[in-house]
Order: sequence, then C-alpha cells, then structure tokens
Amino acid sequence: MVNMYDLILKKRNGGVLSASEIDFFISGYTKDEIPDYQAAALLMAIYFQGMNSRETADLTMAIVNSGSQIDLSAIPGIKVDKHSTGGVGDKTTLILGPLVAAAGVPVAKMSGRGLGYTGGTIDKLESIPGFNTALAPDDFIRQVKEISFALMAQTGALAPADKKLYALRDVTATVDSIPLIASSVTAKKIASGANAILLDVKCGSGAFMKTSPEALTLAKAMVDIGRQVGREMLAVVTDMSRPLGHFIGNALEVREALATLREEGPEDLKELCLTLGAHMLVLGKVASSYTAARSRLETILQNGEALRKFKDLVQAQGGDPAVVDNPDRLPEAGIKQEVLSSRSGYVFAIDAMQMGRGAMLLGAGRMTKDQGIDHAAGLELKKKPGELVQAGEPLAILHTNRAETLADATAAITGAFTISDTPPEPVPLILETVE
Amino acid sequence: MVNMYDLILKKRNGGVLSASEIDFFISGYTKDEIPDYQAAALLMAIYFQGMNSRETADLTMAIVNSGSQIDLSAIPGIKVDKHSTGGVGDKTTLILGPLVAAAGVPVAKMSGRGLGYTGGTIDKLESIPGFNTALAPDDFIRQVKEISFALMAQTGALAPADKKLYALRDVTATVDSIPLIASSVTAKKIASGANAILLDVKCGSGAFMKTSPEALTLAKAMVDIGRQVGREMLAVVTDMSRPLGHFIGNALEVREALATLREEGPEDLKELCLTLGAHMLVLGKVASSYTAARSRLETILQNGEALRKFKDLVQAQGGDPAVVDNPDRLPEAGIKQEVLSSRSGYVFAIDAMQMGRGAMLLGAGRMTKDQGIDHAAGLELKKKPGELVQAGEPLAILHTNRAETLADATAAITGAFTISDTPPEPVPLILETVE
Repeated sequence: MVNMYDLILKKRNGGVLSASEIDFFISGYTKDEIPDYQAAALLMAIYFQGMNSRETADLTMAIVNSGSQIDLSAIPGIKVDKHSTGGVGDKTTLILGPLVAAAGVPVAKMSGRGLGYTGGTIDKLESIPGFNTALAPDDFIRQVKEISFALMAQTGALAPADKKLYALRDVTATVDSIPLIASSVTAKKIASGANAILLDVKCGSGAFMKTSPEALTLAKAMVDIGRQVGREMLAVVTDMSRPLGHFIGNALEVREALATLREEGPEDLKELCLTLGAHMLVLGKVASSYTAARSRLETILQNGEALRKFKDLVQAQGGDPAVVDNPDRLPEAGIKQEVLSSRSGYVFAIDAMQMGRGAMLLGAGRMTKDQGIDHAAGLELKKKPGELVQAGEPLAILHTNRAETLADATAAITGAFTISDTPPEPVPLILETVE
Repeated sequence: MVNMYDLILKKRNGGVLSASEIDFFISGYTKDEIPDYQAAALLMAIYFQGMNSRETADLTMAIVNSGSQIDLSAIPGIKVDKHSTGGVGDKTTLILGPLVAAAGVPVAKMSGRGLGYTGGTIDKLESIPGFNTALAPDDFIRQVKEISFALMAQTGALAPADKKLYALRDVTATVDSIPLIASSVTAKKIASGANAILLDVKCGSGAFMKTSPEALTLAKAMVDIGRQVGREMLAVVTDMSRPLGHFIGNALEVREALATLREEGPEDLKELCLTLGAHMLVLGKVASSYTAARSRLETILQNGEALRKFKDLVQAQGGDPAVVDNPDRLPEAGIKQEVLSSRSGYVFAIDAMQMGRGAMLLGAGRMTKDQGIDHAAGLELKKKPGELVQAGEPLAILHTNRAETLADATAAITGAFTISDTPPEPVPLILETVE
C-alpha cells in the first residue's frame, strides 16, 4: 500500500519514486484526497532531491492523465505545437502561427493569458475588435481543417493537476525546480494533442531561467520527456536578456507582429520566427531540411501568404479583418509620453523584467487572474542595446490611459536602461538547439 | 513587511532567518494565520538547509512564547528538570525524581504519556491505584514546597506551537531534523519553568537517534540553546541499543523502579540513575562536585531515603502508598507466557525498538492518542546482551490480558533477539557528556 508519508520520506532521503507512487500522488492530490501540506512537503523535497528523467516523464504523464486530452486525429497531417517559457514582448506566436500554417503545417494552438510581467497570446489577440478566443472543441478542429490554423484559450479541463500544483508551488517557493517546470510545461502541451512540440526556452533577465546553463538543463529535461513519452520535441534556447522587438503591450504587439508579417518589423523578431518556424516545418515533415524549410518560410513571408493567413484567422474567429491592412483600427492609448535619457552613451543593457513591470503599471498586464487589462497600454522602445543615445533623446514612449501611473512607470523604465561609455558585447539570439 | 513566501524562499536558498522572521512564523502558525502547506514547505526547507545555533535558539524561544510558562519562583532553590529523548523501558524518572528530591533538589516535573513504542512516565505512575497526575498549578507548587517533589501531566497551554508543529512534522516526514528536535524538546522544558535542565539523549536502535554522532549533535544543539537563552543545560548521551533494566510495561516498570530504590534492581539502571542524579545535584548547586554528589546519592539510596521520598510522592498525589512496600498491589496480567530460545549461544543483541513493538502489541502502549492502555501488560527480559542461553531456555516472559496478541508478540520478541556463537563487545552505558 502506497501512502503519502512514505512517499515524502523516500524522496526526502534521495530515493526514486515509482510510476505508481507518482500516480498515487497526482491522482490523490487532484481529487483532494491528499492534503496541501503533504503535497507542499513533497514538492520541497523534490526541489532539493530532484527527479531523474524517468520520474519526470512519469510525473508528466500523471499530470496529463489527471484530466481530458484534446484529440486532434481528425485533422490530417502532423500537428506541431510551439511553447515559449514566457518573456517580455514575446509576440512570436502571432507571426509563427500564420507563417507555418501557410507552409502547410496544421496549427491547432491553445494559448494562455498573461500574468505578472509576461504577456499572453490570448490577451494580445483579444485586442483585435471582435476576436473570439473561446472556441468550442468541434469548431476549433473544423477551423484547423479549413484554414490550417486556429487559436483558442486554454480550458481548465486539460491537466487540472498542473493548475492545482502550480497554485501550490506559487505560494510555497517551489516554482523553480527543473523537473517540476519541465513536467508542467510538457504535460499541458501533450494534453493539447499535438504530435510534435517545439519549445522556445527563454533565457536571461526577462525570463524565468536567468542563465544559459539553467535554460539548457530545462530544455534537455523537456526534450527527454518527449523521447520517453513518444512525442517528438525539439528545444531552442533563445536570448531574453532584452525585450524582443520594440513593442510591449497587447495591441502594440499585434501591430508589431503585423509589421513583421509585412516584412517591416524588427530584425531580431523576424530572425527568431524564421528559426523557430523552420524547425516546426521539419518537425511537421513538410520540409526535408532546416535550410529548405527556412528558405520556404522566407518566400511565404515575402509573397504575403503569411499575412493573408493571419487575416484568415481573424476572419474565422470573428475579428475585424480590416485591422490586418489598417492597424490603426486597433485600440490606441490616450496618453503617449516620452521617457528621455539623462545622459549620452551606448545603451548597454535593458532589464526586460523591469520593462515588463513598467508595462504592467501602465495597464498592459494584471497582477491577479481577476484583474482586467487595457489592450491599448504598453510601451515602445526607441533604443535597443548597442545603440547610441544623446542626453535628452527619448529612450521609450509610454502608452497608457492611466495618467496616475506615469511617474512610477517612468521610473521603472528609466531604471531598466543601463547607459555606458562602451557598447555591450553582442549577444546571439539563438543560444542552443536541443533535439 | 515579513511574509511567509519570502521566508520559505530565504531558508530554501540557504539563508539565515532573523529572530523577527522566526517569531512571525511561529506566532502566525499558532494563530492559524499561516496555512499548514506553507509551514510544511518551510519545515522541509529547514530539514535540508538546517538552522544555525542562533536561529535554533530563536525558534525555541518563539515556541516558548507561543503559550504560557510555569512560574516556579515561589519554590526556593534551583529547580532542576530532566528530559529523556525517549527509550524503551526507560523508567529512570521514577528513580531519579525521588533520589535527587531526597538530596534536596526541588523536582517540579511535568511528564508526558507514551505514544508508539516508547512509554511515558505519566502512564507508569497511573498504574499505581489512585495516583492523580492532573494537579492544579497551585497544588503542584505547594507540593514541591512541602516534599520537594511533584509530578504532573503536561498541559496543552505550554508551548502550543510545539504541539501544532509536531503534528505537522509527523505527517510530512520532517521529524528528524536536529534544530527542530532540539527546539521542540528544550522549549517544552523551558516553558515548564526549571532553572537548570539535564538532558538524557538516548542513542541506539531503541531510540530516535540511531548513532552516536547523531545523538552527540543533538546534545550539543540543545546545550547550545541553553547557553543562548540563559538556562543551564547539561546533556548526557546514553546507550539505548538495548532496553534499560529487565522490564517493559507500566506496572512492571514501577515494580522495577521500586526494586532499584530498594537496591535490588538491575545494575545498568542504578548506574544510569546515579550518573544522571549526580549531574542534577551539581546543576542544582547542592553538591560541589560530581564525585561528592554521586557518593551522597549512594548513601541516600542505601539508607532508604529515596524510597521514602517515592512513598511521600504517592501519598501526596492520592495513590496507594502500600504499593511501595508491597508491589504485588500493582495490577498484574492474567496471562504470563514464556518466549523460548530456539538455539543455544550468546545473546548478541536485543532490538529495543522491536521489544517496544512487542510490548505495545501486548497492550502496554497505544498507537493513537485516544487509545487506552493496559497498565499490567508488558514483558520481562530473562536474558540481556552478553548472557549465555541454552536452546529451550526462556528469553522473555510476556504479560498480557489479550490472548489474541500472543502469537504476534512472540514473533516480535523472538525476532528482537540475535543469538550468536560469540559474545558482543561490551557497550558503555554513558557515551558522552556535553556541558
């Protein structure tokens, strides 16, 4: 007879939990049969003693099996999903989705809302007037069959154990444990039904993983789970020591995504989307090599097919399609205020986390799940790391409808910039690829 | 502003908690303002990261301050208390109490009941017909003033945080942490009001600390707490790899204690009581040296003063004083059955924990707080480690009123004995003294 006390003791003493012990914990905890205090003790023991790759895979599948799974088998082809561990100003899904869908990979994607300093794809899409992210499962699948692309909000029925565990980890200082993060991320993706999953592991001050070795360890742990549970996974570790692109905030990021789909966007964002997209095409077996996939995506971007796919998505989900050609139809903030540099020099670093905090103050994010957000709020970076700035020149433009937050947000954004006499070493955008 | 999340995170990351952080935790947890799951996470983090001696002392005083404290100042002299970390067949308090009280040290002692395999002094005393262990505080103090000796059951008002923490540790596998054990033990003793405390740290298979280094670490941690909070403490690490004396079980242990007070008891028990008692006389400043104290106690034992003090105690607390001269008045079990040795050889070892389990099966102990116990039940060891036994000779005699438990108890007791062709190395009874 398995019991929770022995399970905590075993892990605390460095033992390896069996699949049935892990199932006992996850199913018991999901059904409220195991109290929070025993779960908290076990999570802390896992934080210290870790889990081997077999345990991590078993934990993942136990979380998957705690709820229902989406069945995408009615959609022909290899369904490829993408997951980013979250960053500030990360609007890649808005570009990648139409890009790979236009190349023939079916994209049946469930996304989340933003919480804290990082945004969520669902909030971004909802800044398009009329866009409906609450699709019925049948409509979701029909839409992917018709236009190769649908994007809906995550439902609570998927991986309920993850939701419960995450809430507990969040208040017991057990969030940053590699096996717990890896199983949480991959379980949700596996339950979402994709055959293959591309993982974008963000690394740097604006991400959860602050250093490259940490991010690489997480990437390897997740790819290893895929190998053990029979889902193809590939992970790319990418830089998040600075915000991606120039815009942070929901409507502002949709605007930048549209610009990128029109080939008028920032280089870093385009480069990341082409890299991730090419991997997705290879995972989806619609391209024979990374190089071939990449050149195909460049063509699709140039000839406007990706932009048209985005328009198809907006139209299919009830949004205003005119936004695609005329982004000025997106909500716009009443107040725009420059943040000026107090000195001349090179922008040496931008603390992405501080930027996220500034955007949140302006109304672009929420601190608790129940708070509303202002789709128009956010900020534009006028200078990025490596660029020269003169004293009195603008570093950023704040967009908000809350005048009372301007002082705090200005302080946060000013503090996020490090200005120096020497330029920083360039940081590569793509740090590692794990397959 | 202190908050519980930051406190867990700090300890998890190896930080040192301040006195106010520890107070915040203990007072908040006692008042149910901090949930069990956060307390459990912190306790597991403490298990892994430990606590330095200042933190441990602060934790102890926070536990003391979670409830009321007994004020013994009305009793003249230095009040010396004794605490044993618990063992199988440990009836020392029954002998030590009258011994040191007869020598002039006021003994105002609160004791606990037995749980699991280890017995409790209160249960033992209650096997004396009429003995009342529930004294009112005023009566308790008056009795110590009159006869230098009173013994009552612990009340819930002392160190309530300890009770709550212990219940949580018991179900989250966080019991065996040195700072948590040390603070729990010393807090209860400090709240009980003694000026000086002698700690008997048991070590071996029948005790909580299985090895001598573990026991020594615990002893040092507790003496260190005493130094920091201004209570004199001295710790003696003593062997508990074998049961103490020959009897296990409540009335049986009272019988053996009376025999020891009459100088007809086993040598190991007498030796331990003289050693601990001599330290208590020095702590109580009624003897100038350990040697002088010990020789005084030998006299008090020989001339019957210690036995008379025990009789005074029984009389003062409503028990039948005739028991002292006629132990046959104690309850006696209906069934007495020998456990025979299946082979000849030396008794190499006796697993004290298994012995405790056997005694519990016979009715001498309880598994949960609400179970009743049979004062008459228990067992007598006929052979101790180092002694020769012939096949078919009795190893022990079981005493019980529950015939249905005889088979299981016999198996437990037989299994507890290791018989060998060679005798064991002798183990010293007193392993270390820490002051």
